[in-house]
Amino acid sequence: MNIGFIGLGAMGVPMAARLVQAGHRVQGYDIRPGAAQAWARDAGAQAVAAASPADAARGADVVWLMVVTGEQAAQVLFESGVAAAATPGAIVVAACTQAPRMAAQLAERVRAAGLRFVDAPVSGGVVGAKAGTLTVMAAGATADLDALGPVFDAVAGRVFRVGDEAGQGSTAKMINQLLCGVHIAAAAEAMHLAERSGVSTKTMHEIIGVSAGNSWMWGDRGPRMMQDDPKVTSADDIFVKDLGIVLDQGKALGAGLPLSSAAMQMFLAASGLGHGAADDSQVIRAYRALNGSGKKIKK
Amino acid sequence: MNIGFIGLGAMGVPMAARLVQAGHRVQGYDIRPGAAQAWARDAGAQAVAAASPADAARGADVVWLMVVTGEQAAQVLFESGVAAAATPGAIVVAACTQAPRMAAQLAERVRAAGLRFVDAPVSGGVVGAKAGTLTVMAAGATADLDALGPVFDAVAGRVFRVGDEAGQGSTAKMINQLLCGVHIAAAAEAMHLAERSGVSTKTMHEIIGVSAGNSWMWGDRGPRMMQDDPKVTSADDIFVKDLGIVLDQGKALGAGLPLSSAAMQMFLAASGLGHGAADDSQVIRAYRALNGSGKKIKK
Repeated sequence: MNIGFIGLGAMGVPMAARLVQAGHRVQGYDIRPGAAQAWARDAGAQAVAAASPADAARGADVVWLMVVTGEQAAQVLFESGVAAAATPGAIVVAACTQAPRMAAQLAERVRAAGLRFVDAPVSGGVVGAKAGTLTVMAAGATADLDALGPVFDAVAGRVFRVGDEAGQGSTAKMINQLLCGVHIAAAAEAMHLAERSGVSTKTMHEIIGVSAGNSWMWGDRGPRMMQDDPKVTSADDIFVKDLGIVLDQGKALGAGLPLSSAAMQMFLAASGLGHGAADDSQVIRAYRALNGSGKKIKK
Repeated sequence: MNIGFIGLGAMGVPMAARLVQAGHRVQGYDIRPGAAQAWARDAGAQAVAAASPADAARGADVVWLMVVTGEQAAQVLFESGVAAAATPGAIVVAACTQAPRMAAQLAERVRAAGLRFVDAPVSGGVVGAKAGTLTVMAAGATADLDALGPVFDAVAGRVFRVGDEAGQGSTAKMINQLLCGVHIAAAAEAMHLAERSGVSTKTMHEIIGVSAGNSWMWGDRGPRMMQDDPKVTSADDIFVKDLGIVLDQGKALGAGLPLSSAAMQMFLAASGLGHGAADDSQVIRAYRALNGSGKKIKK
């Protein structure tokens, strides 16, 4: 297939390369000068660096938007000329993490422009993007999802069909982010309580790893929580954004979400303390600021 | 070794039986009439039904308290005559889930009575008790923990030495319970948001199971959350108790615990709605009461 791929960041570069390896012709674009050229040089003969978003979309069967936010997707589509340049009937895949309502609005505008729309956020991070084992949460018309089969197969380990309404894929992603955010903050709360109680966080990490309190995030973020200045794998401010989407959706549905709300306050506080660009494991700094740090045992 | 084993409930029966199988002589007692006799009948020749807690403790090298709360442990030791009947120097193992401060107080009283004390709560549930694969979180003097080796080996898959101060084992258990409680409530919040958003909870359960939002509790409680009246594996009120211990400890340390607190309110609300004896997965009923149930999409 001919694919226009917009957004060659840490996830996009390996994903677009895998699409080329799978035999697709890919026109890649990124807003950073030179990024598309660098990608095309390494990605194979069927990789083409596009000069603009509109050039990436021109003649494509599929336009894959691997931008960060729904706002960026709307801008690329309607201000940078993608919707106007794309072949009528081409499928726009919005793979960004965005509010379900924004995905639904985007779908309406895309259809009004004579294109098809699939709401398909992904999870699995850079590791999954490189290995081609991402999880895709797709919502759209059955015929469109069927048509995307060879595209999804090149980048994903699992493709879930969540529903036929745009927004349902984003809802699934949002619910995953709800759990991720709450679990990271809960891990920080537990680690902090261990510190304050004078119990070794290293031993605690090992105990929980084989106990019912375990989570994927405890395993992944726990070790970085015990470091003073760990490598940034995902920034604190990403969860300010993602839990913000969760809470906006709760507000739109009239649904109070007490745990998401409490977790959000801790990521926000970490951000306010100046750690927004630090690794999200460092939400533990908000606990230390809140309660003091170090061992303190009252009898 | 000669072991006095007090508390032959769902966990105690298989644990005490495994101690007999491992070659120990076990004097078992339970407050329910006939329970010790029923256990002794099935548990082998070295299993003896004791007529009272004091009889169970008499002549024992180790007195294992498998009661539910620290209050019950204190009652058995100091009101039912266990401390007075036990051989001087015998090791009292408190395996109940109790507040760290209570474990520390119990240790002082036990030592004043001329006995040794090990704070050793367990996790792994009835399944782990039957299989002999419990996790023990032990705090006490090295010599006492060494002496208990053959006892722990009979019931546990993993024995963690958390520290030498009574209360540190209970702290580790409490931190596990913090994470368990927050993860169950977070799972209910996520499932509820899926219901309200009109996304299949079954599909959502499958997606999260292979995503970064996964937790042990999501896997275990998730399926029962989707049932209207599931089998009770662990009651809602257990988490009212356990998160109560977590928050009391936070208060004693001067440490605010926002997520534990939010989770506690949901288990409390479920209890207030009359579901305290229901499976803890049914904390989702508190979300439905709070926000209404069923699909509701605002655009």
